[in-house]
Amino acid sequence: MSLIKAKSKTRPPMAKRKKLSGFPEWLPEEKLIEQYFIDKIRQKFELYGFSPLEPRSVEPLDVLLSKGDDKEIYLLNRLHSEKQAEFGLHFDMTVPFARFVEQNRGQLIFPFKRYQIQKAWRGERPQEGRYREFYQADIDVVAENSLDISYDAELPRIILELFAELPVPTFSLKINNRKILSGFYQALGITDTTATLRILDKLDKIGKDAVLKLLIEELAIEPNIAQECLNLAMIKTPDSSFYKKVKDFGYDNELLNQGLDELKFVMDSLSDVKADVYADLSIARGLDYYTGTVFESELAGYERLGSVCSGGRYENLVGDDKLKLPGIGISIGLTRILGPLFKEKRLSANRKTPIAVLVALVSNETKAQANKTANSLRSRNIPTEVYHKAQNYGKQIRAAERKGIAYICFYDPKDANKHEIKDIRTGEQFPIDINTWLLPEADSKITVSLLK
Amino acid sequence: MSLIKAKSKTRPPMAKRKKLSGFPEWLPEEKLIEQYFIDKIRQKFELYGFSPLEPRSVEPLDVLLSKGDDKEIYLLNRLHSEKQAEFGLHFDMTVPFARFVEQNRGQLIFPFKRYQIQKAWRGERPQEGRYREFYQADIDVVAENSLDISYDAELPRIILELFAELPVPTFSLKINNRKILSGFYQALGITDTTATLRILDKLDKIGKDAVLKLLIEELAIEPNIAQECLNLAMIKTPDSSFYKKVKDFGYDNELLNQGLDELKFVMDSLSDVKADVYADLSIARGLDYYTGTVFESELAGYERLGSVCSGGRYENLVGDDKLKLPGIGISIGLTRILGPLFKEKRLSANRKTPIAVLVALVSNETKAQANKTANSLRSRNIPTEVYHKAQNYGKQIRAAERKGIAYICFYDPKDANKHEIKDIRTGEQFPIDINTWLLPEADSKITVSLLK
Repeated sequence: MSLIKAKSKTRPPMAKRKKLSGFPEWLPEEKLIEQYFIDKIRQKFELYGFSPLEPRSVEPLDVLLSKGDDKEIYLLNRLHSEKQAEFGLHFDMTVPFARFVEQNRGQLIFPFKRYQIQKAWRGERPQEGRYREFYQADIDVVAENSLDISYDAELPRIILELFAELPVPTFSLKINNRKILSGFYQALGITDTTATLRILDKLDKIGKDAVLKLLIEELAIEPNIAQECLNLAMIKTPDSSFYKKVKDFGYDNELLNQGLDELKFVMDSLSDVKADVYADLSIARGLDYYTGTVFESELAGYERLGSVCSGGRYENLVGDDKLKLPGIGISIGLTRILGPLFKEKRLSANRKTPIAVLVALVSNETKAQANKTANSLRSRNIPTEVYHKAQNYGKQIRAAERKGIAYICFYDPKDANKHEIKDIRTGEQFPIDINTWLLPEADSKITVSLLK
Repeated sequence: MSLIKAKSKTRPPMAKRKKLSGFPEWLPEEKLIEQYFIDKIRQKFELYGFSPLEPRSVEPLDVLLSKGDDKEIYLLNRLHSEKQAEFGLHFDMTVPFARFVEQNRGQLIFPFKRYQIQKAWRGERPQEGRYREFYQADIDVVAENSLDISYDAELPRIILELFAELPVPTFSLKINNRKILSGFYQALGITDTTATLRILDKLDKIGKDAVLKLLIEELAIEPNIAQECLNLAMIKTPDSSFYKKVKDFGYDNELLNQGLDELKFVMDSLSDVKADVYADLSIARGLDYYTGTVFESELAGYERLGSVCSGGRYENLVGDDKLKLPGIGISIGLTRILGPLFKEKRLSANRKTPIAVLVALVSNETKAQANKTANSLRSRNIPTEVYHKAQNYGKQIRAAERKGIAYICFYDPKDANKHEIKDIRTGEQFPIDINTWLLPEADSKITVSLLK
């Protein structure tokens, strides 16, 4: 009897199946690396006091549709039901978080800091950087009534520290404040600041001339005013020097001044962080709901992927007029980052499996002895596996090598206290006391590095 | 602008929404505990050389239907598509694993040991122990052509060690071998051994008399033969003494003898493990595909949940006549275990958030100093949070207490080198050097204990 049996005889053999595009699946050694990333991200989030949260994967349809965007949502229908779908898979972490906070508000303590490292699903056309099933890692801080500006500096600090420690190409973070843009446009006498923001947000994709053209033709903005908007967007500084540059334009507007002060605070707070961080006044973030600080980022050499980590401050997490829940959040597109790095084989782990030591099997009769040896190593938290069959040592060593295992352990079937260990990478072999031997520090954990 | 805005004005306020039954959601302090369980499980699996794998959440329909059971499958339909669903959410870890192995066989090294800790979905009627979205933690070993019997002993060893270390009520594991049952029935002259197995499998639920009745009436088995089947099923021993008891029946059958030898090997191999483990000859496991060793388990006081960890050996992972991929696997129903323990508030962690230290905020003007203090602690991996507003110390201490944070740190705004720390649980307060202070060992990690 086989475990997975075809019901229909016309079923194609699974080996001939095509992969489902947009639903990436990593090999075990790749999953080990993804797990390393998830662990590092989670550790950093917890270090800054964020609590884990993992809302269910499904939301009622009206919740999913409440965000306003026409998302490619996957609806769930029961196989044996004619009823219409009432819920679907979430397409991000924010909508379920908002619903969760509203539903459980009485049991949460504010300001509430949570992280979510979870999968989301979008029924969209797959392409590089866009998947139909993907991991996202989000943090948000939500407060009642008002949220201190210090969180606007805390989030980029976390992200910059984290990316400096992850084995990825150079990460740069661009920060802006929507109040600067809106206030500046107001000062220029522009009435539809939202539409202006939307057009400026395209600068990266369509270039200066096209942006100017759109501002002039679509919004009927005077050419010199449009040029002034563009001039503002061209400001990019690695510190607070943007402040004077904007002031030099000579416009005075309360919203503008507030935005300038906020962004200056954020940039000054980050002055001790050694990382690529910029005040970039071209960043607008397309989404309507951002009201203050906004973040975008890129990976050197992978600019084509767009932003791999973005977010911003919003005025109210939930659509309730009586209660204000201002928040700030940032989201890491984990699958978007790993996809191309795996494809180009740029990530390398110190081993391909969790196994650190392979116990060579001397003979089938001594399997119990081999297992005892393995259990002794495991009792000191050394991931160990016994080779599955008695073969000559050369074959067992080559098998370990193929699996990327660092050490192979031999036992003497005539003396249960005699063991030797071989470092497969160096070829060095030495006797050990099986009851006390420990892995060298460098081999005790999975480590991942970026290849050039 | 709010982040989550209703499109329709008739939408009910989210706060009044009912929970979606069968889709459990834990509060942050519960999720922290779930994460603790997942980490422990994963660590144990990796210790025994299992590699992580996380196939996509969806499978083509014919793969989902190939297991033969009429599962309550959730199909995925795109919101903006009229097309019929082509795939659905997986309802277990085994079907996707089998498909993955068949599809990637060339890139895997056998015997292949993998673990999967993932969510699955079933559109079934929710009740205690049955969820529509749930976590499962599975391990399987799959080999080409033949799989050594030592894995039949390795899997229960892992599970017994693991459950002994998890904060759960007493866990007991029951092991049997289907060959014993089939061989015994053969020796009795019973022709339909599968139907007999199915009826005996109900012993737990319907009792002896009902089982006897079914055997006699449905399968037309002689009453004395039926009684003999029942006598076999009554054997339960904490060691290999089942062996002699079965031999004493006086039946001789090759399959029976093979099963007895295998189960004896497994029980003897586990003799050094201090845990509740039994050879229980009533265990049959309903599923057709198990061929040798089978496992079931229960948690003391939660027998009503049924088995929380089950599995067995199967002859072939995939339905291919040319290739044999025998395997053995075991699955932990994590959500099934945590659901009632959370409901009864029986699990307690040493803190309710990842935060170990709260830095008290002396005044709004010294927030930068507070952040610097926090960053110093974080640089030594101490999860730290700055209190969000300047209040009197009493209020800040009570807030920390409510959040289950162990320590609160005070700084002297007049002397940046002066810090004191208070253990909130004992009330003890002492000066520290902010550049070197470390958490005591007992507070350095999240720990979870079971309350009586």
